[in-house]
Amino acid sequence: MTTPHSFFKDKPVLITGGLGFLGSNLAHRLVALGARVSLMDCLLPGHGANWLNIEDIRGSVSVHQRDIRDADAMNHLVKDQAVIFHIAGQTSHVDSMTDPLLDVDINCRGNVVLLQAVHQHAPQARVVYCGTRAVYGSPKESPAHEEVTPHPTDIYGVNKWAGEQYHLLFARKFGLHTVCLRLSNAYGPRAQIKAPSFGILNWMLGQALQGKTLRIFGEGNQLRDYTYVDDALSAMLLAAENPAVAGEVLNVSSEQPVTFKHMVLTAIAAAREATGVEAGYEHVAWPEDRKAIEVGDFAASSARARSLLGWSPQVDFEEGISRTVAFYAPHLAAWLA
Amino acid sequence: MTTPHSFFKDKPVLITGGLGFLGSNLAHRLVALGARVSLMDCLLPGHGANWLNIEDIRGSVSVHQRDIRDADAMNHLVKDQAVIFHIAGQTSHVDSMTDPLLDVDINCRGNVVLLQAVHQHAPQARVVYCGTRAVYGSPKESPAHEEVTPHPTDIYGVNKWAGEQYHLLFARKFGLHTVCLRLSNAYGPRAQIKAPSFGILNWMLGQALQGKTLRIFGEGNQLRDYTYVDDALSAMLLAAENPAVAGEVLNVSSEQPVTFKHMVLTAIAAAREATGVEAGYEHVAWPEDRKAIEVGDFAASSARARSLLGWSPQVDFEEGISRTVAFYAPHLAAWLA
Repeated sequence: MTTPHSFFKDKPVLITGGLGFLGSNLAHRLVALGARVSLMDCLLPGHGANWLNIEDIRGSVSVHQRDIRDADAMNHLVKDQAVIFHIAGQTSHVDSMTDPLLDVDINCRGNVVLLQAVHQHAPQARVVYCGTRAVYGSPKESPAHEEVTPHPTDIYGVNKWAGEQYHLLFARKFGLHTVCLRLSNAYGPRAQIKAPSFGILNWMLGQALQGKTLRIFGEGNQLRDYTYVDDALSAMLLAAENPAVAGEVLNVSSEQPVTFKHMVLTAIAAAREATGVEAGYEHVAWPEDRKAIEVGDFAASSARARSLLGWSPQVDFEEGISRTVAFYAPHLAAWLA
Repeated sequence: MTTPHSFFKDKPVLITGGLGFLGSNLAHRLVALGARVSLMDCLLPGHGANWLNIEDIRGSVSVHQRDIRDADAMNHLVKDQAVIFHIAGQTSHVDSMTDPLLDVDINCRGNVVLLQAVHQHAPQARVVYCGTRAVYGSPKESPAHEEVTPHPTDIYGVNKWAGEQYHLLFARKFGLHTVCLRLSNAYGPRAQIKAPSFGILNWMLGQALQGKTLRIFGEGNQLRDYTYVDDALSAMLLAAENPAVAGEVLNVSSEQPVTFKHMVLTAIAAAREATGVEAGYEHVAWPEDRKAIEVGDFAASSARARSLLGWSPQVDFEEGISRTVAFYAPHLAAWLA
């Protein structure tokens, strides 16, 4: 019997955005699988990178403080990599509207710089691009499948779509092995919980663990498809292992949509169970900047990933919340620092 | 009875890419309508700008050699404009694959620079963005309507889609009056005929008028929806006049698809009739760079533009070719210089 993901044993693997939420969790998984892991991160202030995320694997990975927009650095770093997990990006929906030029610079130009580096210096590498359900915006079909017409509601969503299309074009035209995943609201350990811009679910968990009053915009009936990070990582590993998915776009979602309010109540209950702390909640009016980019209900179909990758989500919502709370609770102050 | 397009009389109008094919034809039309016309063009070598295009209206327009990527210039130029026809862009499909960073810089960053200038200094202006059928690539439905999922086959198509989405977001989020047109293969007077990169139809007309042997890649059975420039201009004028289409995307196509080979034979016949010159044709294998971005048959539906703008194409294919040949034939050497 083959060990799961034995593909990665002794393989050189680069993770862009390696100090962020997804990147650092992936790094832990790859270190455990025996890969030779390099992390790249530009540590852009306010963008999720956190040294604490890799504290316990610091001796097992090499870390490069570099920017995907730096062609010289990318040309050097991609060389000889077997797999590149490309996660780095501008990630704030709200910031993309207040500073769209930064979003273009990172999420459009940066992606092209990386792809040109791979094309010229590592055409053998398998590239897994972390895309997002934000490309759909408010889709006209639900659950959204990969052929639904994109209607992004912010500059971030537009540019993340452009980024994945660049990857697909470099696959089709230049034969690169690139595959794009559209992740739905990933959450779990190592997402920053000290500000809401890194993902609202993790922020809410942090609030619940502090016994605060969690704020629900409006009624909180909008549906979201929260995906536990371990499930997202499994899809990423499978996408890298499988040469048949080059040039594909695949949704990766829990297929278990829950309302925003249910998420808040689950977070409060999990925090209570883990630590005894009793958080509350209140309904407040939508802030203008959030309302402007709100997409309403969202659910995605992962049928294509199930079929092509043999992947399926393993961690249900309540379990994922419990695990995440258990991760933060013992060292809450450190994660809030 | 209202004079058609009397809306533009005495109005200040800015055209970006004003020395190119569409921009210069539009300038002629607007000068005739009594508008106060400013042309902006960065005269990027190899990108279609041609002083000859505005020779006969040089005294009736103001010309600014500026780049849409230059925020200071844009902030200044958009001020007090009633209408901005935004046509400037990197326009070569092939170049977008060999120099994707330039395409990103102009067609992504440049569009954001322009929109921020309008947002800050001319929020009252009506902005008509010239998009392209290239966003569809090889659409899965034909004729392509505006809700068909985009599958661009080159970086140009990706970034032109991003460009139009920025315009839609600035309309939805910031209340700008922007409207996006997806033009299908516009042709006619004042497109450069001295190189194929400016539009294959005009290049073929130039070849036919010189009595050359026109080359058809493969069988030449692929369908194209060539739109005569006067029809494209009418749609642009109507889009600016009609406040109800802010935030819309509209196809503008002839709805008269013809095969590539039919186009070539029509060009040869028109050249013969106008000047007696006898061009020939030959079938040759597809060059690699062209084949890589070829989309197969393409036809678009203009139903939405018909309905919302009251627009319809007026010039059929044979008539459009005749008019174009009649424009170039008397001064062919000047247009080839």
